[in-house]
Amino acid sequence: MSQSSTISVCIIGLGSMGMGAALSCINAGLSTYGVDLNPAALTSLRQAGAIDAQSDASAFAAKLDAVLLLVVNAMQVKQILFGERGLAAQLPAGTAVMVSSTISAQDAQSIAQQLEHYQLIMLDAPVSGGAVKAAAGEMTVMASGSTLAFEKLKPVLDAIASQVYCIGETIGLGSTVKIIHQLLAGVHIAAGAEAMAMAARAGIPLDTMYDVVTHAAGNSWMFENRMRHVIDGDYSPKSTVDIFVKDLGLVSDTAKSLNFPLPLASTALTMFTSASNAGLGEQDDSAVIKIFSGIALPEKQESH
Amino acid sequence: MSQSSTISVCIIGLGSMGMGAALSCINAGLSTYGVDLNPAALTSLRQAGAIDAQSDASAFAAKLDAVLLLVVNAMQVKQILFGERGLAAQLPAGTAVMVSSTISAQDAQSIAQQLEHYQLIMLDAPVSGGAVKAAAGEMTVMASGSTLAFEKLKPVLDAIASQVYCIGETIGLGSTVKIIHQLLAGVHIAAGAEAMAMAARAGIPLDTMYDVVTHAAGNSWMFENRMRHVIDGDYSPKSTVDIFVKDLGLVSDTAKSLNFPLPLASTALTMFTSASNAGLGEQDDSAVIKIFSGIALPEKQESH
Repeated sequence: MSQSSTISVCIIGLGSMGMGAALSCINAGLSTYGVDLNPAALTSLRQAGAIDAQSDASAFAAKLDAVLLLVVNAMQVKQILFGERGLAAQLPAGTAVMVSSTISAQDAQSIAQQLEHYQLIMLDAPVSGGAVKAAAGEMTVMASGSTLAFEKLKPVLDAIASQVYCIGETIGLGSTVKIIHQLLAGVHIAAGAEAMAMAARAGIPLDTMYDVVTHAAGNSWMFENRMRHVIDGDYSPKSTVDIFVKDLGLVSDTAKSLNFPLPLASTALTMFTSASNAGLGEQDDSAVIKIFSGIALPEKQESH
Repeated sequence: MSQSSTISVCIIGLGSMGMGAALSCINAGLSTYGVDLNPAALTSLRQAGAIDAQSDASAFAAKLDAVLLLVVNAMQVKQILFGERGLAAQLPAGTAVMVSSTISAQDAQSIAQQLEHYQLIMLDAPVSGGAVKAAAGEMTVMASGSTLAFEKLKPVLDAIASQVYCIGETIGLGSTVKIIHQLLAGVHIAAGAEAMAMAARAGIPLDTMYDVVTHAAGNSWMFENRMRHVIDGDYSPKSTVDIFVKDLGLVSDTAKSLNFPLPLASTALTMFTSASNAGLGEQDDSAVIKIFSGIALPEKQESH
C-alpha cells in the first residue's frame, strides 16, 4: 500500500452522505474514524471496520491527519470545530479539514480564518451525488482551497469521489458553485411539481406525462428522480422539503450579497417555504407538489 | 413493399422539423409532397425525392391520404386549412390530418370540429426532439385522437417518430401534454440562464460551472444543450426567444382555462418576454441570459 492509503481520517456526520463517505474510506484502506450523535450509526460504522466511532472526536483527535465534515449546516460545523470542547483546539497543527456541508461562501471564509488560528488547513468542498453514489465512493466534489489542502486530502478525495472539480484557490468558490447547483436542483424539483400538478388538473395520466418528459427535451435529473415519488405516492423522505428551504435560503443570501436578482429561485424558495409552512417540511422534497389545490394525486399502494 | 408504404402524404411547413419529417417520409418509401413559402426549401425537397413541392397544395390535394402540418402556430394551421383556397375543401373525404404544430387544446378542438364538416379525420399530435432527431426520423410524438386516426397515420408515424405516445381519444390531450412539456423546457432554459448569470456575477468560470452541473443532479436536457451556446457566446438561433414567448404564452392560456396557478412558468414567461422586448426575440432562446445586467458573458471566437 502507498503511504497515502495509511492516513487517519474522521468523518463527522454519519447521515446518508457521511456514512457513504466513511464506508468508502474504509474500503480504500484508510484508518477511518466516525462521529455522530446517533448510536446506531456508530455501531454500524464500527461493524463495517472503523477503528473507532464516538459521539465526540476527543478520544482520537490527536491521531487524525484529516477531518471530513458532513453535518447539516454552518452552525453545526462551527459548533463542532469552535464550540465547547471544540475539535479545532484538539487537532494536530497541519491537519486538513474538509468542509463538505452546504454552507454560504461567507461562512466558508469565516470558518477558514478561524481554522488558520489553529494552524489547520481548510478545503471548501461541498459534495453532490446522493446516498447511492456516496456509498459507492462516487460523489462529486466541487472544491476550492490551497494546493496543500488538495494534496493532504487526496487520499480522502480518491476514496469518496469519482469526480473532483478544483474551482480555484479562494475559499468560498467551492461553496458558491454548490449553491448555484442547488439553485438548479431546487427550481427543477419545483418546476417538475408544477408541471405534474397541471397535468393532474388537465386530466393527463401522470405516468404518461412522466414517460413523455423523461424521453424528451423537457427532462431534468430531478424531474426523473423526484416525480417518480409523486407517481408512486411515496413521500417518505430521501431529501426533505426543509433541506430545500435551507439550500434555496443560502441561494437567496448569496444573491443578496452579490446584489443579484433571482426571479425563478426566489419563486421556488416561496414554493418550498409554503410547503414547509403547510406542515410538509419533513416529507420528501417532491411533496412541494402538495401546495397545489384542486388536484388528485396518486396514493401509495400499501402492501398487504 | 407493404401497402402502408405506398400512401401519399403532404408535409406543410418545411422548417427544420418539417423538412426532417418530409425527408424521413421519403426515406420510408412514402409518396411524399411538400408545401412551404420558401422556394429554396421546395427545391431542396424535390431534389431529395419528393414527388412534388409547391407553395400551395392545390395541384396534388386530391391525391393525398394524409397531411402533416408543421407550421408555426394555430393561426397558420387555420389559414392553411380553412382560409381562402383552404386545403380542407380540396382533400378527399377520409383524409387524415395530423396537426403537429404546438397549439392550445382549445384550438386543437376547434380545428377538429371544422375538419369534421369536411369528413376529415384529425390527430392532435405535437412533436418534440429538435432538428437532428427530425432528420433521423426519430421524433417523439404525443398524440390524441380516434383509433382510426392513429391507424390511417401509422405509416407516417412509423416514418418520422421513434416514440409515439397515445395520450387518449380526446382531441386536445396531445396538445396539453406538449404544452406542459414546454412549461418544463422553458423554465429549464430560464433557470439555466439564471444560474449561469449568477455564476458569472460570483466570478465562477462558466465552463467549470457547466462541467459541474452537467455531471450532477442539477442537470437538465435544456441546461446541457442551451448553456453550451452561452459558453460559446453563440446566439445564432436554433430555436428563438420568441418561440418561448409563444409557447409559454400557450402554457399561460391553458393554465388560465384550467383556473390553475403557475408560479414558475409565469415567471419564466416574464423573463422571455423581457428578452424579446429588449430586442433579442430572434436570437437563440439561450439569449434570455442577457436580461441580467452587470455580468460579463463569453463572446464568440471569430475564425480568421
